[in-house]
Amino acid sequence: MIIDKLYEQVQKKGPLCVGLDTDLSYIPEFMKSQKNITEAVFEFNKNIIDLTKEFVAIYKPQIAYYEALGLDGLKAFKMTLDYLKQNNCLVVSDVKRSDIAATAKMYAKAFFDGEFESDFVTLNPYMGYDSLDPYFEYFEKKDKGIFVLVRTSNPGSKDIQLKQVGDEYLYQKIGQELTKIGKRFNGKYGYSRIGFVIGATHNAEAVDIRNRFSHTFFLVPGYGAQGATGKDARLLLNKDENGAIINSSRGIIAKSQNTQNQKEFDDKITELILKMKEDLNN
Amino acid sequence: MIIDKLYEQVQKKGPLCVGLDTDLSYIPEFMKSQKNITEAVFEFNKNIIDLTKEFVAIYKPQIAYYEALGLDGLKAFKMTLDYLKQNNCLVVSDVKRSDIAATAKMYAKAFFDGEFESDFVTLNPYMGYDSLDPYFEYFEKKDKGIFVLVRTSNPGSKDIQLKQVGDEYLYQKIGQELTKIGKRFNGKYGYSRIGFVIGATHNAEAVDIRNRFSHTFFLVPGYGAQGATGKDARLLLNKDENGAIINSSRGIIAKSQNTQNQKEFDDKITELILKMKEDLNN
Repeated sequence: MIIDKLYEQVQKKGPLCVGLDTDLSYIPEFMKSQKNITEAVFEFNKNIIDLTKEFVAIYKPQIAYYEALGLDGLKAFKMTLDYLKQNNCLVVSDVKRSDIAATAKMYAKAFFDGEFESDFVTLNPYMGYDSLDPYFEYFEKKDKGIFVLVRTSNPGSKDIQLKQVGDEYLYQKIGQELTKIGKRFNGKYGYSRIGFVIGATHNAEAVDIRNRFSHTFFLVPGYGAQGATGKDARLLLNKDENGAIINSSRGIIAKSQNTQNQKEFDDKITELILKMKEDLNN
Repeated sequence: MIIDKLYEQVQKKGPLCVGLDTDLSYIPEFMKSQKNITEAVFEFNKNIIDLTKEFVAIYKPQIAYYEALGLDGLKAFKMTLDYLKQNNCLVVSDVKRSDIAATAKMYAKAFFDGEFESDFVTLNPYMGYDSLDPYFEYFEKKDKGIFVLVRTSNPGSKDIQLKQVGDEYLYQKIGQELTKIGKRFNGKYGYSRIGFVIGATHNAEAVDIRNRFSHTFFLVPGYGAQGATGKDARLLLNKDENGAIINSSRGIIAKSQNTQNQKEFDDKITELILKMKEDLNN
């Protein structure tokens, strides 16, 4: 089951998730010269994947970067998904979709059964839990899972997620409901196919969130370029050093644009990934 | 200003919005035979637009249907946007995106300045109001606007939108905050570039929502195939018979699949659109 495969990847390689939020400006000149947009973006992603896959539990392409490049970008998105599959890498497509009924079915089809097929997608719960139902149909049939936005770490997260509902924050209530719904999708290590997106925020809250939702897998953005340290992010791991994937996008992919040739690029990415791995292991 | 243009379209043509949620099964055989997916979807949309444009304030393609068809579908999505532009039709791309910071900037670029450029997009507010900021940059520069999910009419809308926060529902609080933020983007008819998505729900609530947010433009889904009548939906119009666009997708586009030739198709669509226009005028 996909969530067990993710658990085993973390067991084997650690919790690092690499975000493929590929902006053209991140690609070094030598790598993009004489290539069209699709080729340049795919070549960069392929290089990142080749250099990091033995250290990375899962990859997270952020579809917004590809949509901003139009059809050429989306073609690179598809090629990247295909390449990850060929290399037996797990992938969560960060799409944060939200819709209901027939429309939600179409999104589920797009990302679980179409050209953009991924192991997991991220979803936004605002429209209600029935907006998630169409994805469940693919859980068994195609071995899929989802990560639902619960608590993010941007300043605006207070606007809705931290609204007081009775004696709790709204996100805590949402987490409880999703935990209930997710129980029937538990894998052999006790984690559900319904995971949460949980930003790495301040320490006391991270400890509380980990304790509250002890059998939920977390996708944790915000590590690296967005400010959270390895120590912060590690608070969202369980005692078994598992149960969360910790994403860095710009911390890896936006640091090599000034390299002059393949060797410099390879050395830079390898250095970054090893440093990050060490940071997350301590 | 785009929201004034929308007001004037409603003044001239009435509040009808046609949803281009084009599923392959909606396209009659005679229209799709000997065409590839991109051509078939675009040909259908083009026909719908040609037959309805004099009665329609704005079109709403739902991107999920195109994503489900992969790159071929997204190409048809782009061609449809281009065709709408050539015909001076307004368009709101129903994408319900949600993200923050650098990623939200990429979505804003995709739909306001890239290949998928649209007049308006729909957005999901769950991550907080800072998630909307990157779209504001395009409001003046490119004359754009947004519709933010506030109150939907699916059963699951109770899960989050109807949570009690103090003495109000969460969606009412969100509406108030967005109204405050939106004031600086008001056009000459008093409506803001920040509109709301408001499902056509039960009558008393619709009247309350219209009164509460009297200077906000509403995008109202759920009319036609999804159950709301013209009378229900009209409660969300202001006294000037304006201030809302009322969307029908399947009520128009999913009713002609059995037509046998162009004339039958044209007659069917014309009949449907005229009936709907009359229903919304009463």
